[in-house]
Amino acid sequence: MKEVTVKAPGTVANVVCGFDILGFALGEPLDTMTVRVTDTPGVTIINKDNYDLPTDAQKNVAGVALLAVLDAIKGDIKGFEIESTKVIKPGSGIGSSAASAAAAVVAANHLLGNRFTNAQLVDLAMYGEEIASGSRHADNIAPCIYGGFTLVRSHDPVDIIPIAAPPLHVTVLHPQIEIKTSEARGILKKKVAMKDAITQWANVAGLIAGLMQRDYDLISRSLTDVIVEPMRSTLIPQFKELKQASLDAGALGGGISGSGPSIFMLSRDEATANKVKQAIQSIYDKVDIDYHVYVTTISDQGVRIKT
Amino acid sequence: MKEVTVKAPGTVANVVCGFDILGFALGEPLDTMTVRVTDTPGVTIINKDNYDLPTDAQKNVAGVALLAVLDAIKGDIKGFEIESTKVIKPGSGIGSSAASAAAAVVAANHLLGNRFTNAQLVDLAMYGEEIASGSRHADNIAPCIYGGFTLVRSHDPVDIIPIAAPPLHVTVLHPQIEIKTSEARGILKKKVAMKDAITQWANVAGLIAGLMQRDYDLISRSLTDVIVEPMRSTLIPQFKELKQASLDAGALGGGISGSGPSIFMLSRDEATANKVKQAIQSIYDKVDIDYHVYVTTISDQGVRIKT
Repeated sequence: MKEVTVKAPGTVANVVCGFDILGFALGEPLDTMTVRVTDTPGVTIINKDNYDLPTDAQKNVAGVALLAVLDAIKGDIKGFEIESTKVIKPGSGIGSSAASAAAAVVAANHLLGNRFTNAQLVDLAMYGEEIASGSRHADNIAPCIYGGFTLVRSHDPVDIIPIAAPPLHVTVLHPQIEIKTSEARGILKKKVAMKDAITQWANVAGLIAGLMQRDYDLISRSLTDVIVEPMRSTLIPQFKELKQASLDAGALGGGISGSGPSIFMLSRDEATANKVKQAIQSIYDKVDIDYHVYVTTISDQGVRIKT
Repeated sequence: MKEVTVKAPGTVANVVCGFDILGFALGEPLDTMTVRVTDTPGVTIINKDNYDLPTDAQKNVAGVALLAVLDAIKGDIKGFEIESTKVIKPGSGIGSSAASAAAAVVAANHLLGNRFTNAQLVDLAMYGEEIASGSRHADNIAPCIYGGFTLVRSHDPVDIIPIAAPPLHVTVLHPQIEIKTSEARGILKKKVAMKDAITQWANVAGLIAGLMQRDYDLISRSLTDVIVEPMRSTLIPQFKELKQASLDAGALGGGISGSGPSIFMLSRDEATANKVKQAIQSIYDKVDIDYHVYVTTISDQGVRIKT
């Protein structure tokens, strides 16, 4: 039986000023998924973890993505079987559904002799994101597939721009609270002040330039969000204190990962990222919320074939 | 008598998607200004052109900028005399007032032994822009002083980021009509749809990445403005036809220069920029408006000392 096993990283979307367009791949955590070509029509799903995700392919993020692949290849093969071991907790805000969808399409593409481009894979994986969040968005899928830092210049047509970046270390806090994506979306205003929009695109431009020029100070100055953070940060207990303590500990900046509840802070080196972790712990140890905080990197690798 | 003569280039602000933050310096036209240290207190202005600009320093863009310089140096010298020969027509939309203000502060700084940084010079020159347009904006001044392509990440405090760019040729059309800056500003909405703002900052990010990666196709795809152009382009006769004909002739893209009435089109090479010029001529020859169209480059040089 033809099969392949892949690893798919967690991802951070938005990256403070880049709402809906920027994202990066984390070094950890990584999901594991094995995909097999089968004679059973459609997509069969076997979950090897305890997250109780749907096994009906039409309701499963990876299932929907592979149904889109089957539709695109028009009968060349009959079906796929997915064996999924998720480590990235659904609902944590670091691209759990994107990792499932991206893992599935990259694995299938490998089994099909790599007939799709990365941009086409993003397009196929977005069908999975659509059932997870209600909209075809690529800001987690793109870095999950391409690795590193990515810009979604357009998602229709798909136009993904990999952005070169200097080494960056990431401190991630996952408070064990639930924020429904619908709630996080609902809190956003449909209109924004022109002057705030200008500030935002100035910072987006500064962040892209800072990353490509490897200018940590410019990256830091540009990590400012005057539009989404003021609304969404109210959903995360102690957000302001966490951010200030992280900056005081030497972080370049950071904010809400995707629609939360995880938050991330970027640092120039691992030692600083660990100090940021301690600063976050010292605040969350006093709060009655279970949490998980860890240090990782921005990884150049997206979904990779396990050899 | 201590004196220096400088040349200051015209500039294009906004650059399609980068409203209020992006700009670049043109190879031509260039203003000429001589600045002298004098014993007469304040700023004396001699205009050597026919534009009938104010000679009262408080009402003159270069005058106000040099009064700001005198204020900053607190009595080290008594006054300046400006002898100005403008080539960049006031009100043409290619940074005529910025060129005056930038020329004045760069010349003064040279006479003062270069005691100000470029960022400080931008700050001083903005006093001049303020009396010309009513707001302290730096999107023309920054490229006029730094040369090349610049990002104004912030104007308070001043944070100017030079952006590396590949060779680009510019076709500029100046229709001889008047658009009051107040009218061009008044036509803008105070609020914008979030989805349009997202499209805009995706294109700003794409443009910065395209310039720095020297990717002409990405530059071209990113030169899209969903916010300002739909409102302001109505002020310029035949705008849509001009743009379409320019793209058909091979232009990468383009739009309104600053608040108009000039428009600019970017091309990869001079031959294409000349074809774009012909395409524009063929449209404007049928319109009852006097116009001037020419081909130049994006220049790495900002205000320079004439030796």
